[in-house]
Amino acid sequence: MVFSLPWAWPQLGHRTGENFQQFETYGFLGLIYSILLSIICWAIFWRIGRHAKGDLYRREAMAVVGLSWVVATILGAMPYILSGSSNKLAVRIFDSYKLAPQIYGDPVSPLTKDQFALVHSLVSAGAKGLSPQKLEEQFDAKVQKWNPGENPKPDFRVVFDELSEQPHWQGVLIRPGQEPDSPLDRSEHFRIRGVPMNIADAIFESQSGFSTTGATVIANLEDPISLPHCVLFWRSSTHFLGGLGIIVLFVVILGQGSAGKALMRNEIPGPSKEGSHSRMQHTAWMFAGLYCGLNLILTCLLWLLGMNFFDAVCHAFGTLATGGFSTYNASLGHFYQVDPVSGAWIEYVVIVFMVLAGSNFTLLYFLMIGQAYRLVEDIEWRYYMGIIIGVTICVVCFGMIYDDFITDPNTSTFTEAQLALRNGLFQVVSIITTTGFGTHDFDKWNSFGRGVLFLLMFVGGCAGSTGGGVKVIRHYLFHKILFLQLEKSYHPSVVRPLRLGGRPVDDPDLQTNILIYFSLILVLFVFGWLAIVTLEPDATWGTSEEHIEHKLIDSATAVAATLNNVGPGLGIIGATQNYANFSWWTKLLFTALMMIGRLEIFAVLVLLMPRFWRSR
Amino acid sequence: MVFSLPWAWPQLGHRTGENFQQFETYGFLGLIYSILLSIICWAIFWRIGRHAKGDLYRREAMAVVGLSWVVATILGAMPYILSGSSNKLAVRIFDSYKLAPQIYGDPVSPLTKDQFALVHSLVSAGAKGLSPQKLEEQFDAKVQKWNPGENPKPDFRVVFDELSEQPHWQGVLIRPGQEPDSPLDRSEHFRIRGVPMNIADAIFESQSGFSTTGATVIANLEDPISLPHCVLFWRSSTHFLGGLGIIVLFVVILGQGSAGKALMRNEIPGPSKEGSHSRMQHTAWMFAGLYCGLNLILTCLLWLLGMNFFDAVCHAFGTLATGGFSTYNASLGHFYQVDPVSGAWIEYVVIVFMVLAGSNFTLLYFLMIGQAYRLVEDIEWRYYMGIIIGVTICVVCFGMIYDDFITDPNTSTFTEAQLALRNGLFQVVSIITTTGFGTHDFDKWNSFGRGVLFLLMFVGGCAGSTGGGVKVIRHYLFHKILFLQLEKSYHPSVVRPLRLGGRPVDDPDLQTNILIYFSLILVLFVFGWLAIVTLEPDATWGTSEEHIEHKLIDSATAVAATLNNVGPGLGIIGATQNYANFSWWTKLLFTALMMIGRLEIFAVLVLLMPRFWRSR
Repeated sequence: MVFSLPWAWPQLGHRTGENFQQFETYGFLGLIYSILLSIICWAIFWRIGRHAKGDLYRREAMAVVGLSWVVATILGAMPYILSGSSNKLAVRIFDSYKLAPQIYGDPVSPLTKDQFALVHSLVSAGAKGLSPQKLEEQFDAKVQKWNPGENPKPDFRVVFDELSEQPHWQGVLIRPGQEPDSPLDRSEHFRIRGVPMNIADAIFESQSGFSTTGATVIANLEDPISLPHCVLFWRSSTHFLGGLGIIVLFVVILGQGSAGKALMRNEIPGPSKEGSHSRMQHTAWMFAGLYCGLNLILTCLLWLLGMNFFDAVCHAFGTLATGGFSTYNASLGHFYQVDPVSGAWIEYVVIVFMVLAGSNFTLLYFLMIGQAYRLVEDIEWRYYMGIIIGVTICVVCFGMIYDDFITDPNTSTFTEAQLALRNGLFQVVSIITTTGFGTHDFDKWNSFGRGVLFLLMFVGGCAGSTGGGVKVIRHYLFHKILFLQLEKSYHPSVVRPLRLGGRPVDDPDLQTNILIYFSLILVLFVFGWLAIVTLEPDATWGTSEEHIEHKLIDSATAVAATLNNVGPGLGIIGATQNYANFSWWTKLLFTALMMIGRLEIFAVLVLLMPRFWRSR
Repeated sequence: MVFSLPWAWPQLGHRTGENFQQFETYGFLGLIYSILLSIICWAIFWRIGRHAKGDLYRREAMAVVGLSWVVATILGAMPYILSGSSNKLAVRIFDSYKLAPQIYGDPVSPLTKDQFALVHSLVSAGAKGLSPQKLEEQFDAKVQKWNPGENPKPDFRVVFDELSEQPHWQGVLIRPGQEPDSPLDRSEHFRIRGVPMNIADAIFESQSGFSTTGATVIANLEDPISLPHCVLFWRSSTHFLGGLGIIVLFVVILGQGSAGKALMRNEIPGPSKEGSHSRMQHTAWMFAGLYCGLNLILTCLLWLLGMNFFDAVCHAFGTLATGGFSTYNASLGHFYQVDPVSGAWIEYVVIVFMVLAGSNFTLLYFLMIGQAYRLVEDIEWRYYMGIIIGVTICVVCFGMIYDDFITDPNTSTFTEAQLALRNGLFQVVSIITTTGFGTHDFDKWNSFGRGVLFLLMFVGGCAGSTGGGVKVIRHYLFHKILFLQLEKSYHPSVVRPLRLGGRPVDDPDLQTNILIYFSLILVLFVFGWLAIVTLEPDATWGTSEEHIEHKLIDSATAVAATLNNVGPGLGIIGATQNYANFSWWTKLLFTALMMIGRLEIFAVLVLLMPRFWRSR
């Protein structure tokens, strides 16, 4: 049983995936195959683990968690691959014809304006493509726009032929009827080929789901032909499972004897860790119930606010797990674009639930049984709220000085303040809780706002929540330790115990553990950054000099966003962008970082040490 | 005597400053006033300290070092202010007329091509300005270049009048005869006003000298009218004094009893710390002799290689103190531009001496008495050399792949390899030893090279050298500690002592001290960065969007370069740039960072703690 739990879950995605209007054969089959694979895996592990004794030692527990997370990630990646989902179109295109488009990250020789108009039409049509008539119309409109009054008017078939003779474009452009086994409506259209997700893409997406990061490599979420609804639902439900796993698994299954404590060694002693085995199991079930209940409440609220059931469930999953997968390209900002009134309400509701999801679940339990004062008294929660409020005020003030939130200079100050408060608060909460939803392109903010958001990635939620990052309590203890040590430097004889909310902390290893945790985060961040700067080709940043110069800062935010399970970063992985254009080796590196960050470093890093396997 | 030493030094600058052809009245008077001020200060401190007892306690020792460093910095800044040296012209100008010039950091409304030609001519003429005839010639040549065949040809006096009517430009442009009390040769010239260094500039420059950082706010070093030679020599001799202070003061004057050990608490136990008081003084005198001897040898070598005596002394000071102040705008690259053969030799010689200056002086002493094997056996030195060699190989390979070192694509591979090796090795050594000399614009390197140089700033030289940064030994112990702790996470009962070159280290506080040091560096870096991003106006980065987007990364490198006493960073403070354009508050912040980095954090930070002053 211990071993079977993690891989039995892909059914979930399927179960609700059927509810949709159109039956998605590819998606359905992909999920069925994945479930079969999972069952086979479960059977194998069950046979191997049949005779295992109940007690796990520290070392075994770490190996089990680390490795089972790897297996879960791989199995979770199957639906993406087996359903043939595309993560992007083969062409990456910029809005100006002066910037060459790219094919699979290869920069292509610059296009003429006519050719650019044609490619642009095809890309914006998405995976469905355009019928000859519609393509011709769009093409004419675009030529008109970029090159008004051109004579003689270019013929789109001539341009298409010209373009498809160039070697780079041959594998990408598709004429009607060229792909006989594709669905009928696509085979009559001119289009640009979709790229099926490769193994690295799928594993990245799966890890991003389970680790509740919310970084995506899928450029277009809204096209059911390149990404079936049922696979999209599976994507969001990996968040739910990941969040549930973090809340429950660490307590129940691995909370036996010393093994569980080994994994919790960096967690602060709190009420949830006191008590015996059975009490732990009880706590875990209660937390699971609380987590599911909150998901249910948020789903209902979002449904009442005008989302359809599918979106409501998916966004509730993304919020409570502090994940951040959305079902729209504009993330949660989509609803504001559709309807500003209900959209704004949705954002406020999601803010409240993100704050809850980033709080310690023990405190939420106390809140539930009516002891709200314990929430307010908790030193970590007070710091957490203090940071949110303080940073929001700064971000809103700076943002208003720099006019970051408005595009129309005639907006009244009151409207601007409203906009600034909602968007500023949303982004701050979204980043500190490591959710990573977006309502606003914070990449256009002033340097202070962007810098602060970058630092907030390293703060994270409270201990015992679904949030990632370093956790507020560690930051609190870290600054306490630094001040104590500064004092010790001139008063070496002073022995002052570390205090947490008035009570001295009696764990002698705590100080070292906190410092080591920060050191490891620093080392991982630095070497991850250097690896990405080294390994990722410049072409990912486009062909212009100015874009390549952002490589250093963009890579830094990408590493921070994956290591802390946030999701979006700055620049080419900003709020309106995604990770699709990175090369596969970088995606695997990001996958590793997400896993390391989620399992609080130790459980993963020790697996890489040869001595771990050698010694008994 | 203890208190007088630090402020008696300004004479040095004067003594040698007289050697120059032309008597520099302003500079000479400035130095005389500074010396008088120093003597007054010394007298005051002597009277206060007359009755002080010989023994210093830990807390007092920290206060003395911290505060005396502050006083030395302020006194060292006097010559710059009192000689009326200019640090920059009032206009900052880019090479393309599309980028507006700036006046004191204010962006100015864009200029026409004619106006730009005029301003560009004036700026490139420097503080001396140009006579009407020469200005007209240059103006015509520039108009010809940027706007060939313009008809009717613009008249420069008309353009000048037009420009000087604009309010921004009124205070900046100077006509012949407009400034009656300036030297005669300037009053007949059209020119752009020089900005006298303000207090923040002077303190920055002084701190940069004493802390052997080598960051400068002086845009034009080669103009004796805006910066007299004697002041320039004072500037370089602050490096010499700073280096000597680091090597000697910490041992001799403060090495009495427990006080000295308090300051050395973060230094690794080594041969230099064993023994009694008198032995310590003996060691210190020996080190001082060694340091002066190395300075002398390098001066002679550079002199023989074709530098004049002034340059040879200044560059020797800059090298052995791992400072980096040069007497030319192109830094050490100037000599290669003048004569490639002797210039290349100069660079190789300086590389060798930078490596020596970054080594532990105890080891150099052993080398001097013929025990070279102790140098090679030392674990820190082996790591230090290993990093230099390893990183150089990477930088050279990547640089050659990206064609970073050559401008002419027809260069043969052999020549390219030679260039790459010399420039790559020079920059790596220059940054890791925190010297900061430049021979090549490494800001044009590929992202990997720039990223690696950025990280090298945090490595620094060996303990017991004049180099800044975190020091190699701390990095070595840091990675040892991390591995031990990772092992402890799955084998909690294992007690494995920390080993340094085979011998276990018996100091129980060492682990915490190393971790705390890294944590403090991290905290200072992060908050320094955030402060600069917040406080420094965007206008410093110019008016174009693309430049402002570099604010985050440029600020990060500026903080790293000052905190680790390196000097140059990336972007607007890159190899060919300087710190002149920052606002005064940012310069003071950088000054504080340089001091904190130089005094190994503790001695400065505790001064800022209220509890330090309150408690007895």
